[in-house]
Amino acid sequence: MRILIVGGGTIGKAIIAALTGRHDLVLASKNNAPEQVDISDPASIRALYARVGRVDAVIGAAGSAAFKPLPELTDADFAFSLSNKLMGQVNLVRYGIASVADGGSFTITAGSLAREPAPGASAVGLVNSALEGFVKSAALDLPRGLRVNAVSPPWIADTLKAIGRDPSAGISAATAAKAYVASVEGKQTGAVLDPRD
Amino acid sequence: MRILIVGGGTIGKAIIAALTGRHDLVLASKNNAPEQVDISDPASIRALYARVGRVDAVIGAAGSAAFKPLPELTDADFAFSLSNKLMGQVNLVRYGIASVADGGSFTITAGSLAREPAPGASAVGLVNSALEGFVKSAALDLPRGLRVNAVSPPWIADTLKAIGRDPSAGISAATAAKAYVASVEGKQTGAVLDPRD
Repeated sequence: MRILIVGGGTIGKAIIAALTGRHDLVLASKNNAPEQVDISDPASIRALYARVGRVDAVIGAAGSAAFKPLPELTDADFAFSLSNKLMGQVNLVRYGIASVADGGSFTITAGSLAREPAPGASAVGLVNSALEGFVKSAALDLPRGLRVNAVSPPWIADTLKAIGRDPSAGISAATAAKAYVASVEGKQTGAVLDPRD
Repeated sequence: MRILIVGGGTIGKAIIAALTGRHDLVLASKNNAPEQVDISDPASIRALYARVGRVDAVIGAAGSAAFKPLPELTDADFAFSLSNKLMGQVNLVRYGIASVADGGSFTITAGSLAREPAPGASAVGLVNSALEGFVKSAALDLPRGLRVNAVSPPWIADTLKAIGRDPSAGISAATAAKAYVASVEGKQTGAVLDPRD
């Protein structure tokens, strides 16, 4: 398969490692890949699809959302979170429909804070929940046998370590990557995949 | 209790009927109540709170989101849905924190399309899921014993009738209103209340 992977962070790198040698990968990220894309900018996503041409699958593993206690979250924090991780990935699906071959798939990234609330997660939990809700109904409307799933990983151990928290509460990026592989190579659609399942 | 109710539609009217005589109600809606507010406009929500003063509870039963098959949903449909039903109600909570008395509550409206996908519900399901995810984490960050819940009603029979669909698939607005009463008068927080439970 020819697979467009958007995102070069911890999870993106693990997805690339898991798929390399098995598929033809087109790599895109904001700063860190042959194809540059800013998912918070609709025109940048449209330009990416125009450059890349036909693919069999699209993986979104990019996007940020604000993590702060509710009283400290500003209007700008919500606007950033909605335009970046939420609409960035929704638009990867919407704008990509014409670029994905019949029977192809989209796999985007939500996160377990959607269903496992935490202090500071009002905006992140909103965004992750929104992405989970989106794929469930979007799957029913996609044409030509296209599929769409969300992977909802918990904290990644390396990320916890980088922010000074106990990494044993997280999973490895390689474990998270398996859920993306399952989405791309499997038959599921409208699913929310938790790598711990 | 002094309760601010935002929304004068089918559900809003039923909530007002359920609470009248038991509490002191302050009624707000876009066109149809003593206090006017456009929840898609942050300044309008801030001005509402400045006029209304201290309340013990806020109920949000207002807000629209686009209902169309995914390939027909435009950028404008998503922007409308996010600024209206989603951020309108999130901002009712955020901007109202200082106006609600210690131990008071917010109750906002999501909808069962968050968890029961349907064709045409990509945007509505996204918004309803986002609101459900928001209250779960926001509840953990609210100060002074404030609470926040979402009511997630299924289709209302009168609404189905109005759009030419079988009303027997829905519930009455009066049944939906009971979930709002339970949220306001009870002790729950961070909960998603389905009036069918």
